[in-house]
Parts: sequence; structure tokens; C-alpha cells
Amino acid sequence: MDFQLDILGTGSAVPSYGRFSSSQVLTTHNKSFMIDCADGTQFQMRSKGIRNNRLGHIFLSHLHGDHCFGLMAFISTLGMLNHTSDLYLHAQPDLRPLLEPWLKYFCDDLTFHVYFEDYDPLKHAVIYEDRSLTVETIPLVHGVPTSGFLFKEKPKAPHLDGELLKFYGATLHQIQEVKAGKDLVTADGKCIPNARFVTPATPQKSYAYCSDTAYCERIIPIIEGADVLFHESTFGEAEAARARATKHSTARQAATIAQKAGVGQLILGHYSARYATLEHLLQEAQEIFPNTILSHEGDHLVW
Amino acid sequence: MDFQLDILGTGSAVPSYGRFSSSQVLTTHNKSFMIDCADGTQFQMRSKGIRNNRLGHIFLSHLHGDHCFGLMAFISTLGMLNHTSDLYLHAQPDLRPLLEPWLKYFCDDLTFHVYFEDYDPLKHAVIYEDRSLTVETIPLVHGVPTSGFLFKEKPKAPHLDGELLKFYGATLHQIQEVKAGKDLVTADGKCIPNARFVTPATPQKSYAYCSDTAYCERIIPIIEGADVLFHESTFGEAEAARARATKHSTARQAATIAQKAGVGQLILGHYSARYATLEHLLQEAQEIFPNTILSHEGDHLVW
Repeated sequence: MDFQLDILGTGSAVPSYGRFSSSQVLTTHNKSFMIDCADGTQFQMRSKGIRNNRLGHIFLSHLHGDHCFGLMAFISTLGMLNHTSDLYLHAQPDLRPLLEPWLKYFCDDLTFHVYFEDYDPLKHAVIYEDRSLTVETIPLVHGVPTSGFLFKEKPKAPHLDGELLKFYGATLHQIQEVKAGKDLVTADGKCIPNARFVTPATPQKSYAYCSDTAYCERIIPIIEGADVLFHESTFGEAEAARARATKHSTARQAATIAQKAGVGQLILGHYSARYATLEHLLQEAQEIFPNTILSHEGDHLVW
Repeated sequence: MDFQLDILGTGSAVPSYGRFSSSQVLTTHNKSFMIDCADGTQFQMRSKGIRNNRLGHIFLSHLHGDHCFGLMAFISTLGMLNHTSDLYLHAQPDLRPLLEPWLKYFCDDLTFHVYFEDYDPLKHAVIYEDRSLTVETIPLVHGVPTSGFLFKEKPKAPHLDGELLKFYGATLHQIQEVKAGKDLVTADGKCIPNARFVTPATPQKSYAYCSDTAYCERIIPIIEGADVLFHESTFGEAEAARARATKHSTARQAATIAQKAGVGQLILGHYSARYATLEHLLQEAQEIFPNTILSHEGDHLVW
């Protein structure tokens, strides 16, 4: 099933040049997942026409304001819109004592429950699972405990050609054997190779979100082969020293990670407020990893 | 001196049709005052190019989220921009215990102090004063304790024609007498009437902000004769019953208040999310009070 990614904010801490701070919505298998929730996220959701009726989970990478200050407004607006699905906040334990007094004061009549699902940003683990999907943490390196998220479809069964099996008069028992990899021997003794009936499963789709982080090769085994990688690229090469000092990445570093992890596509974002234009970031990244794009507010990506 | 008003948000609780929720900035006498601070206010400030270096006071009308959820992001961004003026939050006492834990967690290295200046929204009182200006509360009628704000220049001295006094050879003592209202008798016995030297003071400019509120005539004596009145007009006449039930006003009610208070101009705002267009609100108000305008995000009004 398609992965659909809506980009709501591509700026970093100080919103500039019409950029909002970090927030995205990933929609797949009839569910929407919000990733980070900066100031203005509810405005962006509505002005971009993104529906929130399938949204039940918000994943917060870390507790810096430019990744979570929009949470109260977003939750409050869901309440006013009579949202009915419960809301699960996947965040670090510090969030609960900060948010609970605000929820109690401003949102005591919500039409849904808010559950705090604490996770440990220092550990690589599966923190969400449903019938179709898992979400894994990707421990990152930043000024405060931070984790990225890997959204990955579960392995699928190979495709079985039921019509062809019927044509050859396969019994239920024989169908099970074909499923298990065996060839089919028909009633008149003909052997039909397994590959005639079975074609490989559709590959598992995946999306890796890595923000905020210094250059960190430890994440490569986790994100290896992801279809799409969003990797922060706060700075260009001219600011490599500043990237190191502030535990952010350059576009070239993001591309190096993408290349070493063999991902399908790299999306850049979390741009420093100093950049009015971003072409140099794209160029620096594409020198290492050609299949790189810039993200912009309102982008709707499908794979 | 000019009053300059920047409109950052004209929507009500649920942002719709590209409208942000309530926030405005009034600039006069080289100081800027923020009035309410909804989600996305910092974005609006930067995208509209409104400088914040003269901003030291934020006035919050009430503690509903669509008037204060942008506060943390705004303060945090001021910190990142190395703002140096201390910040005074004029709000109800409930704000402090809600905001302090967030300030401590997210903004422990601010380059300025944040002071909580509690006020009582049930009392009409002067809550701010400097050399040129006072700010008075305007107790309103809403679901939670709410106050509007009247920004008013202090009375000014009449204009004295120093050149003319010099021409007639007036002594320092005589100048004091002219200031006190007396005519001038010159050395050669000629009597020059006081009105030749003294012209009336420039009128005191003022701005009244009233949001959110049900129709309430008790505010009229406070806002009487204000140059400009912003009065919430969440609903049109067709929704008058809803306005009553939710303790909001219709555009016609806003105009009735403007007319009875004899203000110079009425600005409508705080529009319900149900209205894609606003012309009917304007029309309903102008039938009562012709000098009415609609506010829009990005409006810059000067008087």
C-alpha cells in the first residue's frame, strides 16, 4: 500500500522565509501518523487540507520547542472538531508532567483520550506495531535525547496464483504445499514448478525520519535500504563547524548517510534560518547521493 | 505620535481559510505591545516582517488556547534571537503555574527575564503606565474571565509658539504666565491675547481591543470616544442565538457597541471557522456603524 508523506514544516528553530518548524504526516494503510508537531502545525494541517480523522498517533523525536510547541493547539483543535479516535503521544517521559497540567486546564472536555506512550530514545526498539506496520526508534546524536523513527511495512506473503492452481485441480493440501515452496504434481503425474504459481511478495515499503542529529553512522544498520530517508540538513558545507558544534548535520553529511545506507531517496529539511535559498544544499548533497530532493511546506510525496 | 496596528490572526478557535487565531501588535511611542498570542504567532511576526526588538509587553485577554498557545514558541524564539528587553506578561494569575515549568524546561538560558504581571479581569483598572501611555482593562463577558485592553495616550500639553513669544520679548516669568492661560503684556504695554501663543493640545490617541465577549454595554463608558475599536464579531446575524450561547458577539452587536460608544472606527475580527467569506459580516455591521472595516492577516493600520 502507498506511503503518503505530507511535509508541514521544513525550518529549524527560528521560522524564516515562510518556513514552519518541524512537522510531517505519514499516511498509509488507512492510518495517519504525525511526526513532530511544531508551533503552527494545526494551521498547516488545515490550510493544506490534510485530514486528521485517521490520526491516532504522534511521534515526537525530542523535546526541543521547534518539534513540539504546536502540540497543545493541535490537540485542542482536534477536540473542537469532535475528533473521536484516541490519541497516543509517543514521546520521552519528560513530556507527560509538562503537558498534563495544560491538558487539564485547557482541554478538560476532549472527545477522546490522550495516552502517553513513553519511549527510550537511547535504545533501538519497536515502539509501535499494528497489523501492517511497525515503527522503530533510531537513536540519534543531538543536544538532548533524540530519536528518529523508521516506519516499515511488515513482511508480506508471496503472491499465489489461485486461478492457475484451480486450473491444475490442486487440492487444499497441495495448495498448502505450494505455499511452503514445493512443486505441484498433478493427478496425471505432471510436475509443475513452484515458480509458476508463486511470485515474490511486494517489497516492504519504509520511511526513515532522522531529525535532529549530528552525523552518526550508527544509524546506518537501522535505516539500511529504506525507500525514503528524511535526514536533517540544517547547514551547508560552509557551516560544517557550526553543524558539529550544534549537533546538526550538513546536507553533504545527510547524503553520505543516505549513500552508505543504500536508501532509495533522500529528502533534505530542517533548514537553518540563515538560508533564503536552498539550492546549494541540494547541490552539495547530490554530489554524494544524486537521488536527493529538497522538502518544502505543502509537499505531498507518494511511494 | 502614530498608533500602528499589525493584525496577525483574525480567526477564532479553529483556524480556517488561511486565518490564524488571535494576535495583534500595537506599536506607538517607540514601543511594541503584543495583544494575545495564538499558535503560529511567531511565524506570523517573522513572515510579516514585524520587528520584535521594541517588544517588552504581552497582554493576554483570557486563557483560551486560541489566545495564548503561541506564547512558548514566541518566547523561545525571542531567546534564540538574543532579544534583550525583559518581557512582561500581563495575564491572569492562572498563567504562571502553567507556563513556568515550560519556561524552566525549554528556555532556561533566555537572554532576558520573563515577569508575570497578574491582573484582575473582573476589575476596570490601569495595569500599565509609562511616560506616554496607559493600558486599562475592559472587563468583558465570556465563558472564562476575560478582559479587553484600552491603550491610551496620556493628556498632552497645549502647543506653545516659542518663536512668537521670543519676537515679543517675553521673559521666562511671562512665558510661565502664558502657559497658565494669561495674555502677554509687552514692555511697551501692548496686550497680546493668549490664543495667539497657545493652540490646543493634539488629541490623545487610543485603541480599544475587545475580544472575546458577548454583547456587553457595560464596556461603553470605558471605550467611549476611542479612535479605533477592535470588537470581536465571531458570528453573523443568522447565528445570533449561537453567539448568545457561546458568549460571543455578532458583527451587528459589535457595530452597536461602536455606535453607542462613539468610537472613530470599528475593526471586525475573530471570525467563526464556518465563514469562507466575510462580506455579510461587514454589511451587517455597516448598517449600524458605517465606518467599519474587516481585519485580515497582515493588515497594517496607522492612525
